Amino acid sequence: MSELKGACILGQSGGPTSVINASAYGVIATALKSSSITAVYGAEHGIKGVLNDRLFDMSKEDPGELELLKYTPSSALGSCRYKMADPDVDDTDYKRILEIFKKYDVRYFFYNGGNDSMDTCNKISKYMQKVGYECRVMGVPKTIDNDLYGTDHCPGYASAAKYIATSCMEVYQDARVYDTGMVCVIEIMGRHAGWLAGAAGLATAYGAGPDLIYLPETDFNMDEFLADVDRIYKEKGNCMVAVSEGIHYADGTFVSEAKTSSTDGFGHAQLGGLAATLAAAVKEKTGAKVRGIELSLLQRCGAHLASETDIEESFMSGKAAVENAVNGISDKMVGFVRTERDGRYVCKTELLNLTDVANAEKKVPREWINERGNGVEKPFIDYALPLIQGEPKLPKQDSLPRFAKLKKVLAK
Amino acid sequence: MSELKGACILGQSGGPTSVINASAYGVIATALKSSSITAVYGAEHGIKGVLNDRLFDMSKEDPGELELLKYTPSSALGSCRYKMADPDVDDTDYKRILEIFKKYDVRYFFYNGGNDSMDTCNKISKYMQKVGYECRVMGVPKTIDNDLYGTDHCPGYASAAKYIATSCMEVYQDARVYDTGMVCVIEIMGRHAGWLAGAAGLATAYGAGPDLIYLPETDFNMDEFLADVDRIYKEKGNCMVAVSEGIHYADGTFVSEAKTSSTDGFGHAQLGGLAATLAAAVKEKTGAKVRGIELSLLQRCGAHLASETDIEESFMSGKAAVENAVNGISDKMVGFVRTERDGRYVCKTELLNLTDVANAEKKVPREWINERGNGVEKPFIDYALPLIQGEPKLPKQDSLPRFAKLKKVLAK
Repeated sequence: MSELKGACILGQSGGPTSVINASAYGVIATALKSSSITAVYGAEHGIKGVLNDRLFDMSKEDPGELELLKYTPSSALGSCRYKMADPDVDDTDYKRILEIFKKYDVRYFFYNGGNDSMDTCNKISKYMQKVGYECRVMGVPKTIDNDLYGTDHCPGYASAAKYIATSCMEVYQDARVYDTGMVCVIEIMGRHAGWLAGAAGLATAYGAGPDLIYLPETDFNMDEFLADVDRIYKEKGNCMVAVSEGIHYADGTFVSEAKTSSTDGFGHAQLGGLAATLAAAVKEKTGAKVRGIELSLLQRCGAHLASETDIEESFMSGKAAVENAVNGISDKMVGFVRTERDGRYVCKTELLNLTDVANAEKKVPREWINERGNGVEKPFIDYALPLIQGEPKLPKQDSLPRFAKLKKVLAK
Repeated sequence: MSELKGACILGQSGGPTSVINASAYGVIATALKSSSITAVYGAEHGIKGVLNDRLFDMSKEDPGELELLKYTPSSALGSCRYKMADPDVDDTDYKRILEIFKKYDVRYFFYNGGNDSMDTCNKISKYMQKVGYECRVMGVPKTIDNDLYGTDHCPGYASAAKYIATSCMEVYQDARVYDTGMVCVIEIMGRHAGWLAGAAGLATAYGAGPDLIYLPETDFNMDEFLADVDRIYKEKGNCMVAVSEGIHYADGTFVSEAKTSSTDGFGHAQLGGLAATLAAAVKEKTGAKVRGIELSLLQRCGAHLASETDIEESFMSGKAAVENAVNGISDKMVGFVRTERDGRYVCKTELLNLTDVANAEKKVPREWINERGNGVEKPFIDYALPLIQGEPKLPKQDSLPRFAKLKKVLAK
């Protein structure tokens, strides 16, 4: 494979995570050092930044600030939810991307996101091949939802899982402090896959977590739910419940029905208010004092509880994307394989076909969920526990987080 | 003052904090070492544990587990919200308490709580004096609300403040990631005093916090609020708001309870709290994408973000309560005085009269809030910043919190 010289673009897309910038730093730091890569650009708001010719020159940034990206949550370059058209139907965006690629001599494109982003990656790559523009395209995974197909796990998941498990353990202490009893319902992100809600099971495994956990992988039955809560509340005097925002009845309707018709760019219904809905139902059934808690954005940006393992793996995935691309690889997403050495968890990268990854979803195996569909089993705990290990040494200023401050100098 | 020999009881009361157990540990560790104190009992669920003869023998606990109390949120002994009757009207409870005090030869009573708890302390002490039972009663302060009269600040406040400021800084990164804009409303505890919501101003002072902060010390005006949000959203493309749960209109009605136009088609009041109510009002006014986030219980039990300063001061207040009582002091609450040494914050204990503290409330000075009532001024930041300093070395097990596990052996 002959050397391909040219600039690279990195874009970030989809919902933020605590460690998406650790992946970005893996790409940027590796690309800045590569002799094949002539310039490193960060696209503002993902692919939109390419379309709008809003590219930041990463070589103009202070190296110390760039390193702080490892501990800075959310997408530092800005994100987007932008659905690319089918190029056979409308190739306007693709022509514009080609124009920008040519303008900056871009030969490497790295896209940091979830399944929709891998779809974007894949479409761009196919188009460039069709028009004969030599360019290597690599996906760098990112999603707290952990639902990317083909990889053992996804960067971003573990830190959210650790936030969820820790918060559940703390709320557990709080919610049982009175002798008057309480039912507490904690709403956790996850529209279609229950990886995040399942992480509440880590708290339970360590003696201070939910009594009941509901994932979208099984159908939700309100009567069974209320009966389970009532039984536990009567037995123990309190009950703690964790639910995925995406739990649904057997007919497919979400338990939390969208209040408005507002949807995001991909046509996903916007959910919310599930904890309050279930809390109200529990109150009516049991008469107990109830509290609904929505972990909301906190769970995906709680970088102060990030997993060191997740940070290092996220960095590694960005680094691997650049190294492989420079070595001639294209049309792949960096995935993770779990191995063991001396009985200890070890994570290695592998390369997955973008075509296979794009728009597929990986769900929690049914056998990792208990039969009644209200808890997770030991294989889930064994899967998630190694991922959340390690406390990063967080940069602080006056005991508050010190996040990266980028200059964002526009490329010309 | 002659030596008073006898047992002591420690009770915890009111809402939990991240560091109330650090105070408890200050009492327990100091009392276990005191030659005047013959036994150390922890009352289950505060004063209710005394009334129900449910006392735990603290000498039966593992010393290592007791030390973990410094890092264990919520009231490890259990809490209560129990209003003592006026003993002149109904002295049933007081007679029972005297009976229990005599049964266990209790000569020291330490009560760890907020203003209601100081009232309980005060009533018990007055009753014991009236009936001629020698007993020294000391209040150990605790409240995230920071509203105890006479003390510079209260144990528990700083850790909640640090949680709030850090979470706001993280959400700030998240809530501005798209180019489509968003208004984010964060609801913070504090029914009558705005110390906690004001702490969101720390995030703003460090460049990543709310644009608008509303405290209950000023009257809330919905039209002004919506105009401010609208202006900022138009200027910046996004807007972040922090509100005390206790904000109220000029007539005293809580905004959270007042009727707004945000009801569904069937005339049902909207589920959820103040954040949801304000978010709906903002959506109606601006058409912006909005998100309401309630920090809920997380802010008062988020021990993983505790301030080391707060932990040490909480321990110090418990220790001071015991030392002073053994030295003959009674009817006091331990308070804090802020001093300086070489330009650095130093905190010392002082003793305040229970009668002065009980049921009084300390509010944020009006001059620490800006004129329009939508932000805090520099004196607030200067006040709060030293309190949140320092990261405790948190005990962990497999990267999850390792909280104290007490055996809770009942005294006989």
